[in-house]
Amino acid sequence: MTSEARPSAVAVYCGSSPGKQPAYQNAAKSLAHALVRSQRPLVYGGGSKGIMGVVSGEVVRLGGKVTGVIPYAMVAAGGENEKTANGLANGSHIIVDSMHLRKVEMAKRVGGFVGLPGGFGTFEELFEVTTWTQLGIHNKPVILTNVLGFFNPFRELIRNGIREGFILPKNEQFVIFVDGPQDISEHESFDWGSAVVSIL
Amino acid sequence: MTSEARPSAVAVYCGSSPGKQPAYQNAAKSLAHALVRSQRPLVYGGGSKGIMGVVSGEVVRLGGKVTGVIPYAMVAAGGENEKTANGLANGSHIIVDSMHLRKVEMAKRVGGFVGLPGGFGTFEELFEVTTWTQLGIHNKPVILTNVLGFFNPFRELIRNGIREGFILPKNEQFVIFVDGPQDISEHESFDWGSAVVSIL
Ligand SMILES: [Mg+2]
Repeated sequence: MTSEARPSAVAVYCGSSPGKQPAYQNAAKSLAHALVRSQRPLVYGGGSKGIMGVVSGEVVRLGGKVTGVIPYAMVAAGGENEKTANGLANGSHIIVDSMHLRKVEMAKRVGGFVGLPGGFGTFEELFEVTTWTQLGIHNKPVILTNVLGFFNPFRELIRNGIREGFILPKNEQFVIFVDGPQDISEHESFDWGSAVVSIL
Repeated sequence: MTSEARPSAVAVYCGSSPGKQPAYQNAAKSLAHALVRSQRPLVYGGGSKGIMGVVSGEVVRLGGKVTGVIPYAMVAAGGENEKTANGLANGSHIIVDSMHLRKVEMAKRVGGFVGLPGGFGTFEELFEVTTWTQLGIHNKPVILTNVLGFFNPFRELIRNGIREGFILPKNEQFVIFVDGPQDISEHESFDWGSAVVSIL
């Protein structure tokens, strides 16, 4: 176990859209608050839109540390400048050569990975860091905030893999689901951030 | 559209375990037959175990072309030699520097991606090539063979993303599901390969 040597920083993977339910943005804010309270720097993909923008903007507003890791092509492209504007005034940004190096740089700077709702890119990033755990490249928790049950099919996919013989049962623990209150009407006000930080 | 310039080769992502149902291996064999019949080379990760070994071994047996793309570390590591043994006698193999370059090399050599059941790595690869479609890096179909409904949660995850505002509805088409017969008892003998090749 390398848990004592783990960096305190946390990588957050999430959508660059805001989502259709206020619960998603509230979860992002509660995560930002919990990170700042526990003095954990945020490491993220450097965008200012959607859930990404909410998490990073809120950490900045609260005086926390933010590091955005941004591929050079995104900085160079005029249309992407806006994406790099938020969350960086109070933090630092790291320019990398490719989307792949962004992942590598993010992963090596953090002690754990947190997923908030998102799309294809978010799913890919979460499965990628889990695959790296399986390969022994790192030993860091992947924690999914299952707001309104958004990630239920992600869990079903893993359970299918186990039941059908493609994933070892002992590897189910690589991904930890924070399910929140059983009563889904409480998800909008639930403190997802504290629940996540308590198991990091 | 760049469909006329698409390579005829096909990348297959799948598990390095055989799975607990004969239907999975049969689907892999039917895909191998359909690839050889339609003179489409197979490009894959170079393993000889599980579903990976079944697809590649069957293409070789039938006289088809197989290219395995293998990271150097896997070739160098004694314990991984076995993984590179199958499917290469009749094809070629390409040694690359990293797991990431394997993905890049596989993606650029093919006209489409096919998913058979697998685990974390398979899910990650399928979401990654889909993300590349969304980013405009390529325009190639991602086709999932939904044997015994294995990929149903994958579809639910995408539909959740759309319903909740994180994936554009028009992007649902990036991933095509081949569902096979409604009667699941017919999945073991169904010709998944012909169904896949007909939409490549
Ligand atoms: Mg990936």
